[in-house]
Amino acid sequence: MIIVCETKASEAQIAAIQQKIREAGLAVHRSDGVEHTVLGVVGDRSRLDMQAFALMPGVRDVVPVSTPYKLASREFHPEDTAVQVGEAAAVGGPEVAVIAGPCAVESEQQIEATAEFVARCGARILRGGAFKPRSSPYSYQGLGVEGLALLRRAADRHGLALVTEVMTIEQIGPVAESADLIQVGARNMQNYPLLTALGRCGKPVLLKRGMSATIQEWLMSAEYILAAGNARVILCERGIRTFETATRNTLDLSAVPVVKHLSHLPVIVDPSHGVGNRRFVAPMARAAVAAGADGIMVEVHPDPDRALSDGPQSLTFEEFSALVNRCRIIATTIGRRLDKGK
Amino acid sequence: MIIVCETKASEAQIAAIQQKIREAGLAVHRSDGVEHTVLGVVGDRSRLDMQAFALMPGVRDVVPVSTPYKLASREFHPEDTAVQVGEAAAVGGPEVAVIAGPCAVESEQQIEATAEFVARCGARILRGGAFKPRSSPYSYQGLGVEGLALLRRAADRHGLALVTEVMTIEQIGPVAESADLIQVGARNMQNYPLLTALGRCGKPVLLKRGMSATIQEWLMSAEYILAAGNARVILCERGIRTFETATRNTLDLSAVPVVKHLSHLPVIVDPSHGVGNRRFVAPMARAAVAAGADGIMVEVHPDPDRALSDGPQSLTFEEFSALVNRCRIIATTIGRRLDKGK
Amino acid sequence: MIIVCETKASEAQIAAIQQKIREAGLAVHRSDGVEHTVLGVVGDRSRLDMQAFALMPGVRDVVPVSTPYKLASREFHPEDTAVQVGEAAAVGGPEVAVIAGPCAVESEQQIEATAEFVARCGARILRGGAFKPRSSPYSYQGLGVEGLALLRRAADRHGLALVTEVMTIEQIGPVAESADLIQVGARNMQNYPLLTALGRCGKPVLLKRGMSATIQEWLMSAEYILAAGNARVILCERGIRTFETATRNTLDLSAVPVVKHLSHLPVIVDPSHGVGNRRFVAPMARAAVAAGADGIMVEVHPDPDRALSDGPQSLTFEEFSALVNRCRIIATTIGRRLDKGK
Amino acid sequence: MIIVCETKASEAQIAAIQQKIREAGLAVHRSDGVEHTVLGVVGDRSRLDMQAFALMPGVRDVVPVSTPYKLASREFHPEDTAVQVGEAAAVGGPEVAVIAGPCAVESEQQIEATAEFVARCGARILRGGAFKPRSSPYSYQGLGVEGLALLRRAADRHGLALVTEVMTIEQIGPVAESADLIQVGARNMQNYPLLTALGRCGKPVLLKRGMSATIQEWLMSAEYILAAGNARVILCERGIRTFETATRNTLDLSAVPVVKHLSHLPVIVDPSHGVGNRRFVAPMARAAVAAGADGIMVEVHPDPDRALSDGPQSLTFEEFSALVNRCRIIATTIGRRLDKGK
Repeated sequence: MIIVCETKASEAQIAAIQQKIREAGLAVHRSDGVEHTVLGVVGDRSRLDMQAFALMPGVRDVVPVSTPYKLASREFHPEDTAVQVGEAAAVGGPEVAVIAGPCAVESEQQIEATAEFVARCGARILRGGAFKPRSSPYSYQGLGVEGLALLRRAADRHGLALVTEVMTIEQIGPVAESADLIQVGARNMQNYPLLTALGRCGKPVLLKRGMSATIQEWLMSAEYILAAGNARVILCERGIRTFETATRNTLDLSAVPVVKHLSHLPVIVDPSHGVGNRRFVAPMARAAVAAGADGIMVEVHPDPDRALSDGPQSLTFEEFSALVNRCRIIATTIGRRLDKGK
Repeated sequence: MIIVCETKASEAQIAAIQQKIREAGLAVHRSDGVEHTVLGVVGDRSRLDMQAFALMPGVRDVVPVSTPYKLASREFHPEDTAVQVGEAAAVGGPEVAVIAGPCAVESEQQIEATAEFVARCGARILRGGAFKPRSSPYSYQGLGVEGLALLRRAADRHGLALVTEVMTIEQIGPVAESADLIQVGARNMQNYPLLTALGRCGKPVLLKRGMSATIQEWLMSAEYILAAGNARVILCERGIRTFETATRNTLDLSAVPVVKHLSHLPVIVDPSHGVGNRRFVAPMARAAVAAGADGIMVEVHPDPDRALSDGPQSLTFEEFSALVNRCRIIATTIGRRLDKGK
Repeated sequence: MIIVCETKASEAQIAAIQQKIREAGLAVHRSDGVEHTVLGVVGDRSRLDMQAFALMPGVRDVVPVSTPYKLASREFHPEDTAVQVGEAAAVGGPEVAVIAGPCAVESEQQIEATAEFVARCGARILRGGAFKPRSSPYSYQGLGVEGLALLRRAADRHGLALVTEVMTIEQIGPVAESADLIQVGARNMQNYPLLTALGRCGKPVLLKRGMSATIQEWLMSAEYILAAGNARVILCERGIRTFETATRNTLDLSAVPVVKHLSHLPVIVDPSHGVGNRRFVAPMARAAVAAGADGIMVEVHPDPDRALSDGPQSLTFEEFSALVNRCRIIATTIGRRLDKGK
Repeated sequence: MIIVCETKASEAQIAAIQQKIREAGLAVHRSDGVEHTVLGVVGDRSRLDMQAFALMPGVRDVVPVSTPYKLASREFHPEDTAVQVGEAAAVGGPEVAVIAGPCAVESEQQIEATAEFVARCGARILRGGAFKPRSSPYSYQGLGVEGLALLRRAADRHGLALVTEVMTIEQIGPVAESADLIQVGARNMQNYPLLTALGRCGKPVLLKRGMSATIQEWLMSAEYILAAGNARVILCERGIRTFETATRNTLDLSAVPVVKHLSHLPVIVDPSHGVGNRRFVAPMARAAVAAGADGIMVEVHPDPDRALSDGPQSLTFEEFSALVNRCRIIATTIGRRLDKGK
């Protein structure tokens, strides 16, 4: 932590700040600049300490030095982490993982047809919502536990791992029994009791970025899971909220190289929720692979126009197949691979 | 719902759209403009229907006509709603409600001194966190149930109602026993299972706006609580996330008149979290009253520099007293009142 | 400037950074923390220097210490600046300045009626656009020089000062002859050649905040004018662009106390462009005065429904009169005044 | 234009609205829904008309139907436009254009070495700033006309076309003599007099997206140039301003497929300004090509650590060469090409 004093800070004010630092059991280095005196605090441990100085007389700025997250940081864990998901997939290794499936599981026929097709194209993980967060209380809310069973059977039949979302602590138990990877949706990225519970669930966690979360806050939320004992966290960029309304959100692909720089955790991209319109999904999925994402998660539906939720952003089978073939070549240009399906 | 066709839409495409509307049991009005054919759908019921048309060939835009919230809308409930909170306060009536207290309850002495002072100045409701959502897993997380008891005793001793936050469904029970008003924090504004549970909790709910929530999404979240059977919802503007970093968030005071226009629910303002810096709290609290807010919620601490959380944004007793005196006069200029304390 | 080294920075890397600092003729203080070595640079002069270090091996962060603006900073000019505008108004002194008039001047009758009425209510400065920036090339673009003459005559007849906007360097000459205060619109806040030219124009300048400008960038743009020799700059908050679409922009009223803290320059608020809807203008104008603004700029039109531009955000005469009467009382609660008109 | 009436709108109010529409010489279709009456206006011509209805009694919403831009719209010009730039490049055709060079031209040696290298790698257009917009009046402002001559000579020697920026109308003359493509910077995207002047300059224009401009506003600014008679406009995405501070701006790559959908104009991407950090430029440049951009514009410098402006975001020669080789393969996966250099 660094404290920048005001130009006009008196010696008495500076002494009081130094005194308070020492009272907290920390050492202080003083540096007198042309305009400002700067105090470096040695032994910085938490934001709380930092805020305590922010409004002291004579203080102009308090600047954190350490990152507030540790376990998620590449500084303390320089090697990339690969997260094994079921038997089918490792996310964060040399292979770019393809995760695909419908927004919500609707029927056995729908999920079976989709699982069969995406596995054939090279997907490793099946996605599908059983519990759906909907902004309107009057919208379709998902099949619940019955949906979990449909998803599991379809995944097993086609050698896929399974990811699905939890919205409450109560859902973790049943979901952890069925799924290989548990998803935290964007709206729950800062639901700390949920994150802590997932830290003890025994399954890897897919943590979506909140719509207005900075990359630092996202990594802090990962830290909650890691600190509770679960080292298997995969991050997922899915668009942030900006002033632009031409797309549902603004997919922040630069988050991919930034996360790779700051953290050892794998990061994938969900272009379907990022853009919210089928027309723009394939270009953004290709771009995600080109930017170095460890995987893509794409909504696919046998008949998007009749989907019960998020149909307009789901790819048809044909569009999905063409997309994966293109991503396969793009992956090779950056030393990754994306295997053929069966 | 209105469907705008593309300039080049063929008659066959337009016929297919009309057919699909009629299949859903809805009527359709066609209007041929100079550039576009416009189809008006009569009997609009849900966004789901709307999305089903968005990517049909020949469709250029789908425009919703009805608001997606009903119970929260002023269209269906033209009169202002006043929400009674305990015996001490009615929020949304002629009196501007002052809610004050520390960010987190830390000790009996701290909360007692604060409750005594703010009641004397004219506050009606005591605020204080027992369960604290913190972005770092390493930060102070609150006193929990023990804190609830301290808050309740302090409120009772000084004739104040009590508001405090819940973060999980499990906390609703104990909090509803102690508090008169249950707060949903910004990070949980779209935690739908929590909202639904609060719809059945028997106590009024203070719903903070999410950091990146539009006013419409905020009203949709209120609709979740109302639809589950709880008509007593108070909205709270607390700042949205923007590019500006000089303040912690950007307090969107225009949300006050906008909410008043769209909804019958009361709306208050929390300038402390909005700006995050004590220096700017009082001007924004005054501005909130001038803009027509039904109340202000302000952090006050006997010794902000030693607060365990959010000290830098808490007012001292002296600053709080001066603020309330100014707000009292401002309230009268717009036909409201803010009573003197004891 | 402070340079924070990476945890794993080698001694050789740190030595190279120190060497580069000394080569630039600056001194360096080194402080070894538990995790990071921090280098304080003494004699910091420009951002350019700072960027040169950002990607050196071993560097984790570069933190500026000095503000990049000097002449606009309160650190170097602790007293409030009041800017005299014509003979009628001083902005930044004890009186809250009311600036009012139509968006665009349309006819002699329109501007005469408006000037007469707003002067009677207590306005000191007449506003009105002669050159209009319009986002569509097909929209009404203003009366040009002819409009300037109409504005000047109306202002003179009613003892008002006059503010109007320039869009190009060429317009500065004719506008400076007619107006007492020259406005730079939000879209031109970073039009540096225009700002530099206004620094030599001999008239005070009203600098609107850009739609996506941080407060620091806004003050940097003021610095351009000040550095070119014109000390008479008034800042004007008019709303920033955020994700919220219920209002045209999001009026950032917290910018008022923040600017007052960082700078000695006066700051006013334009709620009309901030919200873009007549319904919400009066509450936000009252809020601006309560937040401590040095003035408000409000669009008023004798018949808003027939205005050629921005009618929906213009107040009627009756609404304007009621607003000013309320602001007068609010001003007194914070030790300001707003005089009665004639 | 569609007018949605309030649920409680009276017949008299609806009649008044219809009357006003007919007075403007337009026809009206009425459609009575369950909750709302909807009026469709036939013969819609300008936003101005639209605003006139927004605050009429009984009106709830006014929805535009036509796009406000025509010449830039794909609706009226379904074929892709390719813009010829000098003799060396066509932007918007089958080849992905590579534009490269330093942020600012600094010396003959610097620009000559850079031009030679980027031409060898396959770049078609040399970039370099002679007039630099800088947010601080104290920063390096560019070499001016002298820089133009250096740029032109370097471009000619290596068979490259040349793009450089203008900031004022006065600069258009000299720049149009030297450059093959004239750049409008993000800060000037809504400098309408400049756009209009460029509509008559006889050279193609590269229009950067403003930091807070929606895609619609960006196309409206293109419309200014097109409407003034210049059909050769290339759009350039370079990052928008969001809450995220880990990158300088947030590069909105989804703008590429969205612009391709809405407009026939070519669109390129500038990842250097988008991210502001060399580390993240190459991944985002690759992603831009994968997303379907018609070109990329990348800053390259022989010695980025000693660059006079924007060094930290400039690629070294080695990084640039590797990037172009990867983009060449990515281009082929989507049916484009990127030719080898000399």
